Amino acid sequence: MRAYDLILKKRNGKILEKEEIDFFINGFVNNEIPDYQVSALLMAIYFNGLTKRETIDLTMAIVNSGDIIDLSEIQGITVDKHSTGGVGDKISLVVLPLVSSLGIPVAKISGRGLGHTGGTIDKLESIEGFKTQLSKEKFVANVNKYKMAITSQSADITPGDRKLYALRDVTATVDSIPLIASSIMSKKIASGAMRIVLDVKVGSGAFLKTIDEAKELARLMVDIGNGLNRKTFAVITDMNQPLGYEVGNANEIKEAVKVLSGQGAVDETTVALTIASYMAILGGAFDNFDIAYRNLQDLILSGTALNKFKELIVIQGGRPDFIDDFNLLPQSKYNISVKSDEEGYVNSINAEKVGLAAMMLGAGRKTKNDLIDHSAGITMIKKVGDRGEKNEELCILHTNFLNSSEAAHIIKKSYVIEKEFNKKMQYIYDIIQ
Amino acid sequence: MRAYDLILKKRNGKILEKEEIDFFINGFVNNEIPDYQVSALLMAIYFNGLTKRETIDLTMAIVNSGDIIDLSEIQGITVDKHSTGGVGDKISLVVLPLVSSLGIPVAKISGRGLGHTGGTIDKLESIEGFKTQLSKEKFVANVNKYKMAITSQSADITPGDRKLYALRDVTATVDSIPLIASSIMSKKIASGAMRIVLDVKVGSGAFLKTIDEAKELARLMVDIGNGLNRKTFAVITDMNQPLGYEVGNANEIKEAVKVLSGQGAVDETTVALTIASYMAILGGAFDNFDIAYRNLQDLILSGTALNKFKELIVIQGGRPDFIDDFNLLPQSKYNISVKSDEEGYVNSINAEKVGLAAMMLGAGRKTKNDLIDHSAGITMIKKVGDRGEKNEELCILHTNFLNSSEAAHIIKKSYVIEKEFNKKMQYIYDIIQ
Repeated sequence: MRAYDLILKKRNGKILEKEEIDFFINGFVNNEIPDYQVSALLMAIYFNGLTKRETIDLTMAIVNSGDIIDLSEIQGITVDKHSTGGVGDKISLVVLPLVSSLGIPVAKISGRGLGHTGGTIDKLESIEGFKTQLSKEKFVANVNKYKMAITSQSADITPGDRKLYALRDVTATVDSIPLIASSIMSKKIASGAMRIVLDVKVGSGAFLKTIDEAKELARLMVDIGNGLNRKTFAVITDMNQPLGYEVGNANEIKEAVKVLSGQGAVDETTVALTIASYMAILGGAFDNFDIAYRNLQDLILSGTALNKFKELIVIQGGRPDFIDDFNLLPQSKYNISVKSDEEGYVNSINAEKVGLAAMMLGAGRKTKNDLIDHSAGITMIKKVGDRGEKNEELCILHTNFLNSSEAAHIIKKSYVIEKEFNKKMQYIYDIIQ
Repeated sequence: MRAYDLILKKRNGKILEKEEIDFFINGFVNNEIPDYQVSALLMAIYFNGLTKRETIDLTMAIVNSGDIIDLSEIQGITVDKHSTGGVGDKISLVVLPLVSSLGIPVAKISGRGLGHTGGTIDKLESIEGFKTQLSKEKFVANVNKYKMAITSQSADITPGDRKLYALRDVTATVDSIPLIASSIMSKKIASGAMRIVLDVKVGSGAFLKTIDEAKELARLMVDIGNGLNRKTFAVITDMNQPLGYEVGNANEIKEAVKVLSGQGAVDETTVALTIASYMAILGGAFDNFDIAYRNLQDLILSGTALNKFKELIVIQGGRPDFIDDFNLLPQSKYNISVKSDEEGYVNSINAEKVGLAAMMLGAGRKTKNDLIDHSAGITMIKKVGDRGEKNEELCILHTNFLNSSEAAHIIKKSYVIEKEFNKKMQYIYDIIQ
């Protein structure tokens, strides 16, 4: 088999065999096939696509490039969720205790974030004492005993994906639906996920800007999951403004507590309950979405879900007292109001710019080795649909940096304020199953 | 400027600016842009093409990557010709003295062949004493004095093309019309050609298999030439069987002499006279194709053209006595008849297979450092349209290798012999100007 022939085959619109895909990925990971042949193949895939079968084969070739986590010692059917990434996305923090409250085991293996704010693991590290590195034995034991555990990734899963992504990143081949789908799904499958709810974000703060693209990606990921015997649902959700009111790390923990207390923002709460409902259905607790949704709402209203979150914190060594006093969370030195220059209705907020501003305030990592400032972030005061007067507060920046004028400038630019409100609000666009 | 942005731009079907193309080629030649980004761009070009203007800019970027030969000291308007390459193609050997007989200066800088048989330079080295490396001064002086000279390439022209071609060759991006066009034209322009006739071959023995592709390539090359103030014509000629009866080096010299004596094969003679006629028109000797053609025919019949070839040989140090006695050319030890297994009409001969067989007999180079056996080659006895009986000779293999059974097998397979003759013979398909 020669790499050249496989590039030619894909370039000519032909379909690659499983053995050919394995040969290419193995050769790339083992440095036997040079980068310049791989990038040519990636560009040919960008133009000619991959069939569902090819994408499944690529996913498994990537899974097999590294460690595969075996969670078979966990009793019951574990359910996982994954978000394609957005700004202010603290859904995992909410749904983990919520779904676990139903007795469904939630075993979450999470990466650290390399983006506008930290990942779920980084956010949890805002909580004093919370341990995010569990041994595999401890992790499995906790899930079996408490129906929930979260740990950061320590095994060397999907090195092929890391290597491929690095090459895609410099050769303009990132935004290929089958390459994105196989990248995401390979990580889920190598992490041992058996049933998966995907939160596919679309809008200004997501990497997919149109609903059609989001549907195409969601369809393909669901097909990959189901094709590999991992029952998968995808929920397409809005990312045309930050989710909820908090963007950062400690402040997102605070907002997760609010949602779990029944005092969350309507967008955040709706998305969290929708994701959790599908997780509950996959976990076998309900057959019907409406019943699942109402039951999960009740678990919030009764305080059960928040107690479960408190329990999770204690189990993993953290101090839960911040739940009753948010001042115990990391606090930034500076809290700066950004005020409106005009009056009118907020018709849109460019979430990507908000994320960028949060990163500049210290909330995210630019490179893998950057430290995260857990106290940094942004509190949105005005969201889409809100009316504001001139000089009224749009948001508050939290930072330890003396100079935050550039972040303030960016976030002001992210608001579109107009005379009339002309947007239709929608939080959930579609469900793909 | 970032290589990434240019890949993205071309991938998205946008048009690259001259500065962007220069940046990419310079960066590649200077090893500042890695191969994996260049191969991604090449694949994007394969899919999205290049405009005429982009192709001209690419051509000039490649020209500027190396030496540019200045032939301005040559008096008069020099005319060059270039073939996209075929099997049995000895047209240059014929048209050089033929056009020069009209007083038009022909300054030919030729590469060595890396293919089925040698290039024009290799073929001329079959002639005892013939010097193929002239200093630039000697070359210019000879053209001014005798209106003809031929030399092998010594300057470092178009290193960018060599580097690009090596990468295209392993990334399945060779057969892109704008990349082929810029590669060919950059070499012509860097070699100082001012007026150019292109012989674009199409058929089983050429790398372009369809007339549409050949027309597209010819059109683009003519546009590049004219766009860069090098008046260019292209003649699209048949390569569905070897040209003439001889394939090799010494035996192609012999056949060139036959054509120059008026005893050449009809296909070879027609193509040579057509190319020469357009060279004569570009050189200003005639306005009209028919008149040019008839005048050139007369130069052959009168012996003028053959005398000019003899003169060229003497000027460049060779012994011309082989013209009267072909036995003075290199002779192979073995001359093996390949006989037909069936009776009927030859409907086609796969020229690529004939070329491959010639290479196996020693007539060509597989790698740059291989030596050419000038005596090796093939003499076709039967060509398309000929009738043969069972056991009649199809061709004769000339070789110094004891075992030529594989070459014999390949060449036998290249003949399609059928009950009825069903082909329309055509030597010239189109003229693009």
